[in-house]
Amino acid sequence: MKLAHSIKPDWIAVDWGTSNLRAFAMTEDGSTLAEVSSDKGMSSLKPNDFEPTLRALLQDWETPSPCTVIACGMVGSRQGWLEAPYRATPCMAQTATPIRVQNCGDDLQVWLIPGIKQNDPADVMRGEETQIAGFLSLNSDWDGVICLPGTHSKWVHVSAGEIISFRTFMTGELFDVISKGTVLRHSLDHTDMDTSAFDAAASETLSRPEKFSGNLFSLRAADLLNGQTSAVARAKLSGALIGMELAASKPYWLGQRVAVIGTNNLSDLYQRALNQQSVTIERCDTAAVTRAGLCTAYAAI
Amino acid sequence: MKLAHSIKPDWIAVDWGTSNLRAFAMTEDGSTLAEVSSDKGMSSLKPNDFEPTLRALLQDWETPSPCTVIACGMVGSRQGWLEAPYRATPCMAQTATPIRVQNCGDDLQVWLIPGIKQNDPADVMRGEETQIAGFLSLNSDWDGVICLPGTHSKWVHVSAGEIISFRTFMTGELFDVISKGTVLRHSLDHTDMDTSAFDAAASETLSRPEKFSGNLFSLRAADLLNGQTSAVARAKLSGALIGMELAASKPYWLGQRVAVIGTNNLSDLYQRALNQQSVTIERCDTAAVTRAGLCTAYAAI
Repeated sequence: MKLAHSIKPDWIAVDWGTSNLRAFAMTEDGSTLAEVSSDKGMSSLKPNDFEPTLRALLQDWETPSPCTVIACGMVGSRQGWLEAPYRATPCMAQTATPIRVQNCGDDLQVWLIPGIKQNDPADVMRGEETQIAGFLSLNSDWDGVICLPGTHSKWVHVSAGEIISFRTFMTGELFDVISKGTVLRHSLDHTDMDTSAFDAAASETLSRPEKFSGNLFSLRAADLLNGQTSAVARAKLSGALIGMELAASKPYWLGQRVAVIGTNNLSDLYQRALNQQSVTIERCDTAAVTRAGLCTAYAAI
Repeated sequence: MKLAHSIKPDWIAVDWGTSNLRAFAMTEDGSTLAEVSSDKGMSSLKPNDFEPTLRALLQDWETPSPCTVIACGMVGSRQGWLEAPYRATPCMAQTATPIRVQNCGDDLQVWLIPGIKQNDPADVMRGEETQIAGFLSLNSDWDGVICLPGTHSKWVHVSAGEIISFRTFMTGELFDVISKGTVLRHSLDHTDMDTSAFDAAASETLSRPEKFSGNLFSLRAADLLNGQTSAVARAKLSGALIGMELAASKPYWLGQRVAVIGTNNLSDLYQRALNQQSVTIERCDTAAVTRAGLCTAYAAI
């Protein structure tokens, strides 16, 4: 990395989600010179806040004038900077032509990548479409199923360069509200996780999803009665939630080639749970595929 | 009801839960002269707060001296006034001998009713054991399964005057954190509920519990894409959660005589969902069975 004041990007790639904002100083050939991030996610901003927030984030770099910015994520939602309308499945896995934000100063040319919707079952994505396009640009002619675990995990069926269908599961958000907002919080106060308890819970819930609901309160009772540790309880909750997701997404992963795009910690858990079902996975780094996807969109404008 | 200053109870019955406190002015023959409630539940109190809170609540009544108080609920938990140790299943459905609180003044004789624990699967109840004892005192020789829907719904197998086993489901608490703490809150902003959407969601989730996880995010997407109303979304969330509970508790209710002890609104929903499975239910009022259970404990000291 160079010192900030000597960073001279050709253009800027931006991943602007609900809670976070990350910008990359890019060259024409797709290299990353530097990156900078902030907690100014979409949910903390009003429409008029986006431009000054972006300008402040980029102020230490010597950006060209005009400066091209390609952004993906919730920045393009109805509550974001400007709504970039959804495409509908089935659609090309390449990102659609980005939507130009019209009201910036002449020195800033901002483009937002549209999300994807599915009419039946109703579903939406914003940001993941860019990661999928990036993954496919790095893995040409790849057919199979891509899992993007997280707050709202996605399972996406990709074939012959098209997104055929996808489903979203609120696994990460459920873990968050259950572990922080219910009586279980008293039994989940450490962040350690017992992997064998995770394996057992994921496997049981996948094969017997109806047990999910009753097994939750047992996490509290086993602490009260038997002093079950937080590491075991957290692992059982995580395993039960991921097991539920895998039970529901089984039509996606069963017998398919599966790639997981996520953080190391989450990818480890999905790998453990899927390996138990004799599914091997290809792993790849979220930031790398996000940048690759933003590069494909830059090349297309 | 008489004016407060002319209320002369023989003893006091108290239902003291996590969030609320309710006291009843009782006569020797089990009649209720008056009731008073407050939001000073167990979770808002430290051990030394319980006695002054109770005295303040009773101050308008002409209580005898000494005054006998019988209390059930979380007041008897480890975080409560004094721990009234659990009995273990299987056990008599009559409430156990209450535990005397020793450190009150001479004019106050407070007794706490012990909860019930189950070692495998680990489970606990505090308060519901008193409602069950009250229900059986009003329905002698009743055998079957009692459902107590709520924040932590219970299903309890009762046979020949014994509690054989029970399971707890966090249905009400899950509805609360999912509807208030996740992205679904934007799509669940009214309290109306569409009953046919409830019926369909309960039935689908009961028969296909693995669909639970994927159907949650669809509530948000159907709002974004199709303007699905909050009344439909709330009904689907409620139906999915109650359907999950019924899928897990099927070994309890299938082919059994079922009584539901709960509020009218909740009992209506459980009745709808169970009727669809050709299960008829007997309904009874929570406050009435709670008081009846406290009366049986008073008679036993």
